[in-house]
Amino acid sequence: MSVEMTRRTFRPCWCAAGAFLIVVVMAAGCAKSGTESAAPTSTTKTQLDYAIAIHGGAGTISKDISVERRTAYENALENVLRRGVEMLEAGGDALDTVEAVLRMMEDDPLFNAGKGAVFNHEGGHELDASIMDGETLACGAVAGVTTVKNPISLARLVMERTPHVLLAGPGAEVFADETGVDRVDQEYFFSQRRYDAWRKTLEKKSEAKDAVRGTVGAVALDRDGHVAAATSTGGLTNKRFGRIGDSPVIGAGTYASDAGCAISATGKGEEFIRNAVAFQVSMLVELQGLDVESAARQVLESRLEPESGGVIALTTDGSIAMTFNTQAMPRAAADSTGRFEVLIW
Amino acid sequence: MSVEMTRRTFRPCWCAAGAFLIVVVMAAGCAKSGTESAAPTSTTKTQLDYAIAIHGGAGTISKDISVERRTAYENALENVLRRGVEMLEAGGDALDTVEAVLRMMEDDPLFNAGKGAVFNHEGGHELDASIMDGETLACGAVAGVTTVKNPISLARLVMERTPHVLLAGPGAEVFADETGVDRVDQEYFFSQRRYDAWRKTLEKKSEAKDAVRGTVGAVALDRDGHVAAATSTGGLTNKRFGRIGDSPVIGAGTYASDAGCAISATGKGEEFIRNAVAFQVSMLVELQGLDVESAARQVLESRLEPESGGVIALTTDGSIAMTFNTQAMPRAAADSTGRFEVLIW
Repeated sequence: MSVEMTRRTFRPCWCAAGAFLIVVVMAAGCAKSGTESAAPTSTTKTQLDYAIAIHGGAGTISKDISVERRTAYENALENVLRRGVEMLEAGGDALDTVEAVLRMMEDDPLFNAGKGAVFNHEGGHELDASIMDGETLACGAVAGVTTVKNPISLARLVMERTPHVLLAGPGAEVFADETGVDRVDQEYFFSQRRYDAWRKTLEKKSEAKDAVRGTVGAVALDRDGHVAAATSTGGLTNKRFGRIGDSPVIGAGTYASDAGCAISATGKGEEFIRNAVAFQVSMLVELQGLDVESAARQVLESRLEPESGGVIALTTDGSIAMTFNTQAMPRAAADSTGRFEVLIW
Repeated sequence: MSVEMTRRTFRPCWCAAGAFLIVVVMAAGCAKSGTESAAPTSTTKTQLDYAIAIHGGAGTISKDISVERRTAYENALENVLRRGVEMLEAGGDALDTVEAVLRMMEDDPLFNAGKGAVFNHEGGHELDASIMDGETLACGAVAGVTTVKNPISLARLVMERTPHVLLAGPGAEVFADETGVDRVDQEYFFSQRRYDAWRKTLEKKSEAKDAVRGTVGAVALDRDGHVAAATSTGGLTNKRFGRIGDSPVIGAGTYASDAGCAISATGKGEEFIRNAVAFQVSMLVELQGLDVESAARQVLESRLEPESGGVIALTTDGSIAMTFNTQAMPRAAADSTGRFEVLIW
């Protein structure tokens, strides 16, 4: 089976002015499943100053999408990635960086997180997010929030201001009341595209068949050598009220440990929960000494069903894996060597 | 530091009539942390026909508790264990068995699950439970349910009747409406002891300091060679509305895999989530070939803070671990060789 791979590569020159020399490479190749690695296992790894990867959800995106739509994806990912690089280049924390870039993606209706979140069975929006600090294993998550503009920031506040990890539903809203995070009404999350997808799914009386899931995630390594991970989602189109997927579950959708890796997952949430995918990849790196690419690939290939989803992951040496077993996973990666690339298929 | 260990051992004679020859042994020993193993690593392991372990929560129980209270714990655990043994002896499924014994513990106000659940900050009860089948990795969980008499049975229905793993809050109640599970009003969960504990905690304005946490759990191996695990809890006294601990999180509080182990955890839920304790123990058994006792001990000793909690775990060869780093963990274990023991400290 031949799957065309489209790649857009940017190689910025990190001179003082920060001018970007952008080289766009459109490469067609053959890939059974999409995999990317910053540092192939056969080469000697060198410690990078910083690195970042982001994803916009694993799923199906037709190769025949319009140029406008493709450009929209690529521009969105490029802008988000550039913001992350700027923060890390300036010495920003990995934790601050993954939160900031996820806020950008939550604000973009292109993705299924924050504005643009999918509709649940009742025609509403319930948002989930989680964040984790690889240095301390501190983590926070929210599930089923309905009025919070940026769930990832509320997840971080759960981590920093409560003794808890996960707050759900109305209780999470009560907590939001105490924090001063931006609130919105449900209409804010509306997007015509997600509404049409929901109506179509309703007619079929199906659930969990969203072609492009659109969960967003980020992993980052900062100049202090610490990693962090974050994930945010609107879940599944037409999902049952109260369903919690993997995104807010630490160990399933998100994990970060300096000793293992930082990782954000996207895909069939229940598969990722039952296999504790994020934690499992980190364990394979930490305990079995696998490089992050091999660890991610091993879990996807040996544990998950085909078409389950994908992960982005990164270790403290700056190695990045972006692995998926679906047709597409909009994603982007950059590091302190000048790597700067945006990919969809 | 010398910690007295009190043990009550029953050795039933498995004759046709099922008559029990009960030997009660009260042994005083020295244990830094409580650990039990059905099959010490130094002996050759033999495949057992079936095995079961249960726990009633790790925490602090004074050695000076009244004889009545101690007897109440021991009798409750003994009755639950006997029911489990009867089911497994008769060829019952591990999954049916862990559900049945957890229902008994949920119905007993002695434990912090179902009737007798602790009060949250608002003076209500929110219940969490999860269950997992080690043969298929099928799993189900509910969080924050308020009207379901036996949350463990609702968790099983999530597993069997939905494509999801975790349903939370009002959405889980809506699902309960469709299933016909027994419903109760909040007063059903009332117990004077938990009420008094809550009032005391409220006065101190503290949270998460319940002396006896009282989460319940079970792991079982059936005659078909499959394992299952289940956990149920009322959470932390005075917990924040909407807080989800480790009990309903697959990989944190509960996990089951024939390839690894079945495990149920109890303790500081957030610590167990951030370390994916249940999954981690199972991974150490599966990938590193550790016996279940060593795996459980390694995770508790190397990953968790002192006084964090404990786990019960069992592998398909019938080896049982009951490990904790708190003062006490009411627990009991039995297997097809006639082992039948109940312990508190």
